[in-house]
Amino acid sequence: MAEFTLQQIAQRLELDRERGGDRVIRGVGEIDHASPEQIAFAESPDMLERVKRSAAALVLVSHDFPEVTERPVWRVENPRIAFLKIAELFVRRHGCDGIHPDASIHPDARLEADVSVGPRAVIGAGARVGSGSCIGAGAFVGDGVSIGRDCLVEPNASLLAGTELGDRVIIRANAAIGSEGFGFAWMQDHHHRIPQLGRVVIEDDVEIGCGSCVDRATLGVTRIGRGCKIDNLVHVAHNCDIGRHALLLAQVCIAGSSRVGDHSILSGQVGVSDHISIGNRVMVGGQSGVTKDLPDGETAWGWPARNIKKAMREQAAVSRLPDLTKQVRHMEKRIEELQAALARLEQPEQT
Amino acid sequence: MAEFTLQQIAQRLELDRERGGDRVIRGVGEIDHASPEQIAFAESPDMLERVKRSAAALVLVSHDFPEVTERPVWRVENPRIAFLKIAELFVRRHGCDGIHPDASIHPDARLEADVSVGPRAVIGAGARVGSGSCIGAGAFVGDGVSIGRDCLVEPNASLLAGTELGDRVIIRANAAIGSEGFGFAWMQDHHHRIPQLGRVVIEDDVEIGCGSCVDRATLGVTRIGRGCKIDNLVHVAHNCDIGRHALLLAQVCIAGSSRVGDHSILSGQVGVSDHISIGNRVMVGGQSGVTKDLPDGETAWGWPARNIKKAMREQAAVSRLPDLTKQVRHMEKRIEELQAALARLEQPEQT
Amino acid sequence: MAEFTLQQIAQRLELDRERGGDRVIRGVGEIDHASPEQIAFAESPDMLERVKRSAAALVLVSHDFPEVTERPVWRVENPRIAFLKIAELFVRRHGCDGIHPDASIHPDARLEADVSVGPRAVIGAGARVGSGSCIGAGAFVGDGVSIGRDCLVEPNASLLAGTELGDRVIIRANAAIGSEGFGFAWMQDHHHRIPQLGRVVIEDDVEIGCGSCVDRATLGVTRIGRGCKIDNLVHVAHNCDIGRHALLLAQVCIAGSSRVGDHSILSGQVGVSDHISIGNRVMVGGQSGVTKDLPDGETAWGWPARNIKKAMREQAAVSRLPDLTKQVRHMEKRIEELQAALARLEQPEQT
Repeated sequence: MAEFTLQQIAQRLELDRERGGDRVIRGVGEIDHASPEQIAFAESPDMLERVKRSAAALVLVSHDFPEVTERPVWRVENPRIAFLKIAELFVRRHGCDGIHPDASIHPDARLEADVSVGPRAVIGAGARVGSGSCIGAGAFVGDGVSIGRDCLVEPNASLLAGTELGDRVIIRANAAIGSEGFGFAWMQDHHHRIPQLGRVVIEDDVEIGCGSCVDRATLGVTRIGRGCKIDNLVHVAHNCDIGRHALLLAQVCIAGSSRVGDHSILSGQVGVSDHISIGNRVMVGGQSGVTKDLPDGETAWGWPARNIKKAMREQAAVSRLPDLTKQVRHMEKRIEELQAALARLEQPEQT
Repeated sequence: MAEFTLQQIAQRLELDRERGGDRVIRGVGEIDHASPEQIAFAESPDMLERVKRSAAALVLVSHDFPEVTERPVWRVENPRIAFLKIAELFVRRHGCDGIHPDASIHPDARLEADVSVGPRAVIGAGARVGSGSCIGAGAFVGDGVSIGRDCLVEPNASLLAGTELGDRVIIRANAAIGSEGFGFAWMQDHHHRIPQLGRVVIEDDVEIGCGSCVDRATLGVTRIGRGCKIDNLVHVAHNCDIGRHALLLAQVCIAGSSRVGDHSILSGQVGVSDHISIGNRVMVGGQSGVTKDLPDGETAWGWPARNIKKAMREQAAVSRLPDLTKQVRHMEKRIEELQAALARLEQPEQT
Repeated sequence: MAEFTLQQIAQRLELDRERGGDRVIRGVGEIDHASPEQIAFAESPDMLERVKRSAAALVLVSHDFPEVTERPVWRVENPRIAFLKIAELFVRRHGCDGIHPDASIHPDARLEADVSVGPRAVIGAGARVGSGSCIGAGAFVGDGVSIGRDCLVEPNASLLAGTELGDRVIIRANAAIGSEGFGFAWMQDHHHRIPQLGRVVIEDDVEIGCGSCVDRATLGVTRIGRGCKIDNLVHVAHNCDIGRHALLLAQVCIAGSSRVGDHSILSGQVGVSDHISIGNRVMVGGQSGVTKDLPDGETAWGWPARNIKKAMREQAAVSRLPDLTKQVRHMEKRIEELQAALARLEQPEQT
């Protein structure tokens, strides 16, 4: 377990003041559960009592947080970010300790300096792994796959031939990247596979969650743009193009040749039809089904996904629909009564 | 293949009578397909003809089942449960036959008595595997992972550092437990990872299906409560708390920090937003989207998920909506006619 | 990298004319990106300018495509299919080069001629692998599993005991076939597992995508019919029966004991309840929820899935619902005015 002195932590936060000296910190924790060897943080003034009761060695608070005497506090610009910076000190990449003797590495694979390969990992012919990258236990790196610097491939993930990873990419456990996707043509009496000869390019700083699948392109490239973050169990089909810094939440499903713009966010379980274009900075609400292009900046929701205001108006109208139905039935009666009354007036002799 | 005499099977069912003697049984089967070496069961009296025609060595029926002379039958309290008890005799855990020489086990791992580890499985430093547990081929057990007694981890499942399994837990093939989930904060020009330093605690008797993912907590614990059963391809995000004996069916997706109460059931493809609290004994219908808290005992459905009676009323109203629209259009005309007629009556000199 | 002369390629297309001679071709490409060593194709006459500008060695066009002099073209019956046939020449199954010394193969496994087994793959006791089949790195083939001829099992896929593959089956990376599915019975104080003793039968020419799961039957068989194609992250529960040449797109979820007929298509994220029967040649639109049987030839959509014309009529009515609501409110006022006017007419002395 990593440990740091309070002084080292003050340096990490670029706090010039001398604080805490050589007291040892062994982690971070939540305000209510932190141990005396951990650091916690508090954002809102109404957490004052919890700060007072906390067992933490130190609590990070903002400059305008109320006075605390019961407990050591450090006042910082942004307690949450300061906390994150400290937390990062304690992150350890398990299984990244050099080349394990039980790894299976092809003699033609090219491993740069400081590469780690876990037990039972497989690295194929012509594959290249950049310096500082870590290939987890049981992970598969296919023939000719290219992995940049400081990447992490977690255990049992599969990177098939034709996959290229930029720098600082993370592929989580049991993800499958670069397989042949769903391309078939009906020929007389069977679905005939359309060979998928393209590649998958995962740009710098991308993260792909556990169990997610990104298929290679039919021809050309399936691209995941720089800084894009993909959650667990997401499906990205052949020839898709996902923009920079886009977020695809868990179980999102994107059919072939669709495009998601930069900084767009697809919430959990969203489905996107094939050949759809979603613009930049679009937000799509959970479980929506995108069947038409969405312009830049749109916030969409529903099934099919449409402008959220319109969708919510419809949703509200549906929830009042049983009442509306009753109202119409009642109006129907009143109209009949009116007609009857009118008939009496028009032909008074008949009444 | 396991085999038992009818006498042994009678003992298993705690039937005190002497039956069947040493006839050999090699399995169980469906009434219509059972072989003469298998046992079948019949629940309902209208299965009488199928019982008569069955080739099974023996058919389990209830005490009030009609008279059968063509075939040996055993009358029991509950034929289905008796059948289950026999079926369990024939379950064999393949690949659970001791430590395979091709396993990769860290010298600092602690394996109790009667542990099995399959070929190509990896057990990390400081991991602990309780007695009677079986780690399947190619499965990954990360550094410091703790596994209780009589657990089964199926092939190619990944248990990352920070995972703790109780007793009798089953993790099915290709599941991924304990990875870092979807925690990011936007910082100027990129999504910055929030280190996920917490754990995953899987309590006793939990089962997690193939390909499912349970992320570790940011801080603290992601908890799967005792006796909970999780189907295939389910996503449980960081810091979720799933109650005891809850059922999460296939492809359920639960976002961060949400809570599902004891004995609750989420049907297939249900989505739950983050920070949602679902009470105890709640039932949520398939594909619903839970965006608001649900109280104890609620039965909810729809998108967004709401009380099922209300949801079905709305659903019924929507299916009649095209008719309602026509009705309103027709009423519009009648009102116009009424207005015209009234105008004639009010100003008769003008007609 | 494979290479062929133009003459060899002409033979592949069964073109009897002598063409191109010994010019070397090293792949296929898209019209706009093809290199001078690649072949491209153009389907529609409006691609004429792009054909002229293409760098491809050769462009396949239809017989009625406009005259091209700037670039070599071959006129064929169906340019797309001809292109596919050429593309298939360049497909290479990576990692299919014989038995790797790092594979773990049980002495009782039976491997026919020309079988490939990748590094870290595991083949259990009594398993059988047919000639020409390729088992990828890290894949698991359980005890007694039967694999036909010319199959491909991609890296880290898991085939558990009780799985049978026909010929030419493809199981993609990280898929899990033949595990015990979601079968439980509530007994007093816990969900009791119902032993799943059945099998999974995957017939000839089936393809199952990355991360997909097919559970074995409780008793009997879970069947995937001949020629069926299953996309990524699909769940098929115990005892399902999927018809011949059916297509299940990404993230489809089929609950226990349901049946999908021949040639039916379930689009992405469709959910099917348990014990449902979907007929032959049925099409179900994306994200639909099938909760009732669907007859042969039906095209269904929505939630719950119903005839698409009815569903779209309702959908259109919902999108006009806010307007309808306003219209009704306005009609309400007019009726009140009519009633008031009528009252004045009926009792003129009171006005």
